[in-house]
Amino acid sequence: MNVLVTGGAGFIGSHVADEFLRLGFHVTVLDDLSGGFEQNIPSGARFIRGSVTDAALVEQVFSEGRFELVFHLAAYAAEGLSHFIRAYNYTNNVVGSMQIINACVRHHVPVLGFTSSIAVYGTNQLPMLEETEPRPEDPYGIAKYAVELDLRAAKRMFGLDSVVFRPHNVYGERQNIGDRYRNVIGIFMSQIMRGEPLTVFGDGEQKRAFSHICDVAPVMVKALLNPACRNETYNVGSDAPHTVNELIGYIGQAFGVEPRVTYLDARNEVKEAYASHDKIRRAVPGAEPLTLQEGITRMSEWAKRHGPRKGDVFANIEVWDHLPPFWAQELQQGPTPP
Amino acid sequence: MNVLVTGGAGFIGSHVADEFLRLGFHVTVLDDLSGGFEQNIPSGARFIRGSVTDAALVEQVFSEGRFELVFHLAAYAAEGLSHFIRAYNYTNNVVGSMQIINACVRHHVPVLGFTSSIAVYGTNQLPMLEETEPRPEDPYGIAKYAVELDLRAAKRMFGLDSVVFRPHNVYGERQNIGDRYRNVIGIFMSQIMRGEPLTVFGDGEQKRAFSHICDVAPVMVKALLNPACRNETYNVGSDAPHTVNELIGYIGQAFGVEPRVTYLDARNEVKEAYASHDKIRRAVPGAEPLTLQEGITRMSEWAKRHGPRKGDVFANIEVWDHLPPFWAQELQQGPTPP
Repeated sequence: MNVLVTGGAGFIGSHVADEFLRLGFHVTVLDDLSGGFEQNIPSGARFIRGSVTDAALVEQVFSEGRFELVFHLAAYAAEGLSHFIRAYNYTNNVVGSMQIINACVRHHVPVLGFTSSIAVYGTNQLPMLEETEPRPEDPYGIAKYAVELDLRAAKRMFGLDSVVFRPHNVYGERQNIGDRYRNVIGIFMSQIMRGEPLTVFGDGEQKRAFSHICDVAPVMVKALLNPACRNETYNVGSDAPHTVNELIGYIGQAFGVEPRVTYLDARNEVKEAYASHDKIRRAVPGAEPLTLQEGITRMSEWAKRHGPRKGDVFANIEVWDHLPPFWAQELQQGPTPP
Repeated sequence: MNVLVTGGAGFIGSHVADEFLRLGFHVTVLDDLSGGFEQNIPSGARFIRGSVTDAALVEQVFSEGRFELVFHLAAYAAEGLSHFIRAYNYTNNVVGSMQIINACVRHHVPVLGFTSSIAVYGTNQLPMLEETEPRPEDPYGIAKYAVELDLRAAKRMFGLDSVVFRPHNVYGERQNIGDRYRNVIGIFMSQIMRGEPLTVFGDGEQKRAFSHICDVAPVMVKALLNPACRNETYNVGSDAPHTVNELIGYIGQAFGVEPRVTYLDARNEVKEAYASHDKIRRAVPGAEPLTLQEGITRMSEWAKRHGPRKGDVFANIEVWDHLPPFWAQELQQGPTPP
């Protein structure tokens, strides 16, 4: 069976590709390497470099690929930055997704997996349940929700089956720890390895249920393969909320250091975000998830081998107003020398 | 005071531009003439030909214009066709709107008017009230709702004030009666004037509250100028639902003919759509709206002077599957000779 994984050079996508290979699928990865890395792509997968926004390329990939499954993970995923790069956000995350939906319809792909986000819920909707009416509050979450709605429209009009996943705060091996704008755990590990202070927006008391990749990617693949999951939406991730300050404690332990912390002005973000996972647990029964401490230990071992990484600053800010000063300062200094 | 009207060469946009001129504003129209006509633009307005998706042009227009008000009406508006042109729909209607939102933020425009649609409500939400949680069901409605949500995000992050309008089934003078994919009244008048049978999807018993432009454009402009309306959402249009078959009766009377009707297969559309207008009536008290019969009479007088028009077929269908056979047939025949 042939499967396409868009964004398969990215963090979550490469683990999804791994899981499909483990199950004996032929895997094609489509990725433009804007957020991912070629070395993330499992060696058993075929790699096509390009963007999901390239309609002609997408059509060619589908014509050649004869996919029985498509898992669409390609996206620009820096939620906090999305206010300042609105056009880029919707172009990649909505219009790009439409090229995939169109191609799935034209080529009669039986089922499409889509990674949405708990960003669709918005604030004050805790615990986040799949049946809660989404009220996304930032361009990233709005784009994800628009695609979810569009998939329902595509089901009604074309019969395209899909499974929507809302993972959250995923961390683990192969994460882009050089990304400056997302993935607080990767940022912290990079900062510790470079001997820099950890930068925290606000007081560090914001809570997230950080989810190790080994509790996310295999579960999503199993659900996509389960016919009972079609046209359903699933939260995916850990149940246990932790503050950013607790997280800093675990990371310090894993690296054997006492981290220095710089507290920056709070940015416009959800204060507390955790979700119910009863629905996915019923659909895909499995082992107990890793604790945060276990997951951090695993990831830190990988990070120590991998070394720190400092990514490029994002070059195409559309609106500078209200950009958090810490980001604005970096951006005005221009790209970091390698 | 300077005002920008995007889509000001279109049907609703040109009437909005008229109203601003009547009130003494300096009006700039930005329109790419993809759906509008240069002759629609009021002679007192300055016209810039170009697309809202052109970020560099939008920035230039805002830099030169010093707008105190922006009314964003530019959009591709064929709801029924939006299933088959997903990427085009979201590029024009979402990404294009982001260029306008970004520019309003960068240039500190005090208030932005946005024409959404009652397509955001979806089915089974009657009567449609502004406080109803939207559940749009087609790409057109999803795109409009995404922009509504994004405007709220832009208010929270940047303080950008906006007023959202959800007009519906607007008809009247200057409508593109050559458009094949929308505006049933214009299509019927063109067909009658060409001596063709009227084409109806389904049995003609679908209900719409058709709204004459004179009950829509001035009301929207007045609301945009009323500070109490900022960051509010308003349904705009007529209260009185009529079936398509009733409509055909009035059009026949206005043209003095007994129309022939061809009933085609029903397409995937909302069966019944009417909205409450109590909220806008409280904000902008005004005269009683025209009856459908009065409105049809006015429009038919204009249409007789104007003559029929047969527009181009839409050239860039992305997905042919499930396209209504009537449209598919026309499209396969290629563009109509002039």
